[in-house]
Amino acid sequence: MPKLDPNSSEFRAAGHRVVDWIADYLDNVDQFPVLSRVQPGDVEKQFDTHAHDDGKSYDALLEEFRSKIIPGVTHWNHPAFFAYFSITGSQAGILGEMLCAALNLNGMLWRTSPALTELETLSLRWLRDALGLPSNLFGIINDTASINSFLALAAAREALGVDVRRKGMTGRDLPPIKVYCSEHAHSSIEKGALALGIGSEGVVKIPGDDRFCMDINALEAAVARDRANGALLCAISATLGTTSTASVDPLPRIAEIAAREKMWLHVDAAYAGPATLCPEYRWLWNGIEAADSIVVNPHKWLFTPVDCSILWTKKPDVLRETFSLVPEYLKTPDTAEINYMDYGLQLGRRFRALKLWMVMEHYGLERLRNTIRDQIGFTKRLAEELQKREDVEILSPPQFSVLVFRKKSDEETQALLDRMNASGRLFVSHTKLKGKLGIRVALGNGATEWEHVERVLSFL
Amino acid sequence: MPKLDPNSSEFRAAGHRVVDWIADYLDNVDQFPVLSRVQPGDVEKQFDTHAHDDGKSYDALLEEFRSKIIPGVTHWNHPAFFAYFSITGSQAGILGEMLCAALNLNGMLWRTSPALTELETLSLRWLRDALGLPSNLFGIINDTASINSFLALAAAREALGVDVRRKGMTGRDLPPIKVYCSEHAHSSIEKGALALGIGSEGVVKIPGDDRFCMDINALEAAVARDRANGALLCAISATLGTTSTASVDPLPRIAEIAAREKMWLHVDAAYAGPATLCPEYRWLWNGIEAADSIVVNPHKWLFTPVDCSILWTKKPDVLRETFSLVPEYLKTPDTAEINYMDYGLQLGRRFRALKLWMVMEHYGLERLRNTIRDQIGFTKRLAEELQKREDVEILSPPQFSVLVFRKKSDEETQALLDRMNASGRLFVSHTKLKGKLGIRVALGNGATEWEHVERVLSFL
Repeated sequence: MPKLDPNSSEFRAAGHRVVDWIADYLDNVDQFPVLSRVQPGDVEKQFDTHAHDDGKSYDALLEEFRSKIIPGVTHWNHPAFFAYFSITGSQAGILGEMLCAALNLNGMLWRTSPALTELETLSLRWLRDALGLPSNLFGIINDTASINSFLALAAAREALGVDVRRKGMTGRDLPPIKVYCSEHAHSSIEKGALALGIGSEGVVKIPGDDRFCMDINALEAAVARDRANGALLCAISATLGTTSTASVDPLPRIAEIAAREKMWLHVDAAYAGPATLCPEYRWLWNGIEAADSIVVNPHKWLFTPVDCSILWTKKPDVLRETFSLVPEYLKTPDTAEINYMDYGLQLGRRFRALKLWMVMEHYGLERLRNTIRDQIGFTKRLAEELQKREDVEILSPPQFSVLVFRKKSDEETQALLDRMNASGRLFVSHTKLKGKLGIRVALGNGATEWEHVERVLSFL
Repeated sequence: MPKLDPNSSEFRAAGHRVVDWIADYLDNVDQFPVLSRVQPGDVEKQFDTHAHDDGKSYDALLEEFRSKIIPGVTHWNHPAFFAYFSITGSQAGILGEMLCAALNLNGMLWRTSPALTELETLSLRWLRDALGLPSNLFGIINDTASINSFLALAAAREALGVDVRRKGMTGRDLPPIKVYCSEHAHSSIEKGALALGIGSEGVVKIPGDDRFCMDINALEAAVARDRANGALLCAISATLGTTSTASVDPLPRIAEIAAREKMWLHVDAAYAGPATLCPEYRWLWNGIEAADSIVVNPHKWLFTPVDCSILWTKKPDVLRETFSLVPEYLKTPDTAEINYMDYGLQLGRRFRALKLWMVMEHYGLERLRNTIRDQIGFTKRLAEELQKREDVEILSPPQFSVLVFRKKSDEETQALLDRMNASGRLFVSHTKLKGKLGIRVALGNGATEWEHVERVLSFL
């Protein structure tokens, strides 16, 4: 039988065509409608109902990719993609992913690829220091902030000292477990708590104040109530850069409460964290020394293709005690080395550090800082322009690269939102603040210039 | 300020060089020692202690990649990589990853890229049918089998009907929860149960029989004991293709017990599942109609780069009820469509279906079948050769593409293992069976030919 890939000649030719397609695509992505215009089922129905016994040439498949798949793509690369948090890749990041796919490593153990483990350690130390984070933090890259917040909460549960790892949570007389976060916290905090058996009733959502920051008095009241009721006070998750408005919870005061109550302090800075590359945003970390765990996503605002989310912790031993489980077939003589599989749920680990290293090294920190500064500047300028319009209300002022505005009524706001997104010229998402529908504009794409942001104004 | 990537010209040139490097690498990977020979710290110490403010050219970075990183790589692509389960990529898979990185989509919602969602649905239906699995299965791609087994066990916990999602597991009078698996099950089952608050004491490891299959009598006895003690019987995880020996648990009899006791039946076929592309291995699915959830990993034995693990379930509603949580900013009018984020823990979702589609379409099912057949054939031939050696004992006969053998003593076996792995010419891992150390040979690389497998014999 011939080998699966007898040699690399077909791949080499197709690879060059793919690189050219990617380069052309990135140069012209602004020509596509941002939001795909297909109807449900349109993509699927173009394909046969069953896989084929015979293969197809790369040329044929690339043609199918262009003609059948691309029309169904919502272009996250589009410089006027302002919805959610735009997952901003970059050209250096793509090259990193190409090499990652080619090597196809699995970094479960140090020995299964020393370079993967050591570049992960190195690049996270580089980034930690570049963001001005404390030097006692241990870092690990996982796929998503959802997973990293989940791992942090699992460590917090273990840190309660009731040996959940061995004895589990049922069949014994454990009180309800409580995790605190703001009502504006990302849904992944609640999802993580659900997975951990804490239950939605165990997730205490503290109201936000007028500026959408966690209300400390409400937190104090909730903690006092739960303590009086004999609950196990597990963790507080503070958000530095919430999803809807990029508001920043008052970390120093939250940290005091966490310390006093002996709770784990988790910090979700998935989006806003990278802004601290710029010294003028280092205030974000005010109080961070108290944090037990911190999430920052290079795939949100550091020009690294999805997936790349960092979990830093000053208590790696707790994370390890929560998750380490080494079967015979994974035992290794390399006892002094980091085996990253010991610090999480997932055994399989891609070489994600490669793209992060490529991004930091190719652009250099100064160009990354200036790109972030540009985006924050565009957001401020947009707010100034919006404030000149009489029929526009700013629901949340620019914070980092996010702002929320609306028209006079929910109906007019919805109509404007629909008109913008149907145009194909930009893509914004929505949120509700104080009961009012708002249009949320979030910048994050390295290719965004003022001309793209200005499109928002052209619809008013 | 200039944009992060002013245009694509540097990327285009570097991308072509990267493609050529990848092609040369794949053609010559056999020239590298399989297992990296660096000492701990060797990779890291070549780099500066801090990230740089100024950027570097792609050429400079590719040179660093070649000279500093590659020596620290353990070559999972090497055709004589026989350790663990070799994560077998392929050239088609690499092209798929290149396009995935370029588009950089996030498939949390249908609308965030219809093509991602619909190609995922389509490719999983294709593969489900090609493997001869029941047509009522709903599929989702996640990163790893660790995550997929965890999600399945979370659904099993929810299916107990005690509303863990809302009320949590503590502060109420719930009995201990029990999950059953064989002592030969993958460690991810126990790890998932730890994360879910079931605790290691809740994971009942059923002894294997002489052929390393779950002992049904022991399972019956354990279930009867736990039922008598009032435990909540949650799930049985059957393994079709265990890690150490690729043994197959007796699914039909396990299914009877699960049905009688109203337990969730989970099936871990992460490694062996793809063999059922070949009709002659369809017996593996004997009893599969009863399974509530099934894991199959295209990144283990279907020539798809890591990460790509499939979870199929006939109870997607339970999975959804366990995990769905839709905050305002993710609400969408597309109510009829699948939003895959509702079926798991992770919000961020890469376009993994693209590489799976490329692999199935470029090679065609028949070439994939024949590659798998070759590997199973080589494993049998290796066993025949080993049996001719007087000083070799086969600890576990060839099952699919895995076998385990040893020399007369643990000491001799360890010495042989060390000699093989130090040679750089192949990489095997070890396991312990019935208290004896064994050398485990697992094939799975599309480039492996008999000449590579024969290297095992050359060390005897």
